[in-house]
Amino acid sequence: MERLQQQITFILELDKLKSVLRRTKPTGMDRQENTAEHSWHIATLALVMAEYANESVDMSHVVKMLLVHDIVEIDADDTFIYDNVGNADKWERETQAAERLFGLLPAEQGAEFKALWLEYEAQSTPEARFAKVADRLMPLLHNYHNGGDGWKIHQVRAHQVRQVNSVIDHGSRELWTFVQALIDDAVVKGYLAE
Amino acid sequence: MERLQQQITFILELDKLKSVLRRTKPTGMDRQENTAEHSWHIATLALVMAEYANESVDMSHVVKMLLVHDIVEIDADDTFIYDNVGNADKWERETQAAERLFGLLPAEQGAEFKALWLEYEAQSTPEARFAKVADRLMPLLHNYHNGGDGWKIHQVRAHQVRQVNSVIDHGSRELWTFVQALIDDAVVKGYLAE
Repeated sequence: MERLQQQITFILELDKLKSVLRRTKPTGMDRQENTAEHSWHIATLALVMAEYANESVDMSHVVKMLLVHDIVEIDADDTFIYDNVGNADKWERETQAAERLFGLLPAEQGAEFKALWLEYEAQSTPEARFAKVADRLMPLLHNYHNGGDGWKIHQVRAHQVRQVNSVIDHGSRELWTFVQALIDDAVVKGYLAE
Repeated sequence: MERLQQQITFILELDKLKSVLRRTKPTGMDRQENTAEHSWHIATLALVMAEYANESVDMSHVVKMLLVHDIVEIDADDTFIYDNVGNADKWERETQAAERLFGLLPAEQGAEFKALWLEYEAQSTPEARFAKVADRLMPLLHNYHNGGDGWKIHQVRAHQVRQVNSVIDHGSRELWTFVQALIDDAVVKGYLAE
C-alpha cells in the first residue's frame, strides 16, 4: 500500500501543472494556455505527424516523453524560449524540480520518469528529436493562426523564430520546410517583424 | 501538401477541447477542469499505474486511446456520468462528433483515430478496460481530496459512486479494492452521503 500511496501522491501533485501558464494562447481563446493541456496537445500532435519523422522512431516512446518532459515546470515554471535571463539558470532549476517531483514516486519508477526527461533534454535519440518537433511546431501554429499575437506582445523577430526553431530540422526535414514557409508568410502578412 | 494541411486543420481544431469543462476541479484550484488537461492527466496516470492491470496490456495503446477518446467532446460536450438524460443520447451525439472531427484527417488516418475511440467505447479489449480504470480513478481522487466537493454539489450518493465505478474491477482488481476503501472512507468522513 505504501507504494500505491506514493504513486497517488505523485498523480495528485500533477494537478499543479494545470496552473503553470505558457506565453501562447489556444486559437480563439482569450487566455493563456497551461502546460498540462499543452502536453496533451503535443502528444496527440506527435501521433498525427509521426510519418514526417526523419528517422524510424518508436512513437510510444515519443508520446511518453512528451507526457512527462514538462512536469518539472511545476516547480521550475515555464521558461519563455526567448528569455535569455530565464534560460541561464533553467537547467539548474529544472534539475532540482526533477529531483523533488520524480522523487515522490517509488525509487525505480521515479528513475524511469527522470530518464525520460533527461533523454528529451539531451536530444541524442531519434525519439527525443521528434518529440522536440512536436513541442516546437505547436506554438508556431498558434502564433501564426492568432495573427502573430504572441510574437507581437513579446517583440520577437523573424530571425529569432528561425533560429530557435531550426532544431525542427533535426527531427523532421519535411516539417522544417513547411515551418520555414510559414515563417516567411508570417512576415509577408505582418504577423512577424523581419 | 494537402495531406499535411488536413492534419494541421485537425490539430488546430483540437484547441477547442481546452474549452470543454468537466464537473470536477483540479485539487487546490477554484475552477473546473477542462477535458484537454484531464486527457493529459489520465494518460500519465496510466503510465504510473500500469503494474495494476489485471491482464497484460500494451501500455502505448492504452495511452493512445486515452489521448484520443475524449476528442468527440469538442462537439458532443462532456456528459456528466450521473446525468441520465444526457447519457440517453450520448452515443448518437458522440458518433456524429467522431464523424466530423476524425473526418478532418486524411481518410486512413481518420479511420485509425476513430477505431481507437470505438475500441474504448466497446470495452472489449484489455487495453480499453485499463484505459477506463484511468478515466474513472482520476475524478474519484479529485472528489476525495476536494472533501467531496463535486459529490455534494451534484447530490451524488455512495451507491451511485460504487455502481458507476465498479467497471474499475474489470481493468484492475487491485485498484478496485483500493477505490472501494476510498469510497467507504469518504462516507465516514462525511464527503459522500450513504
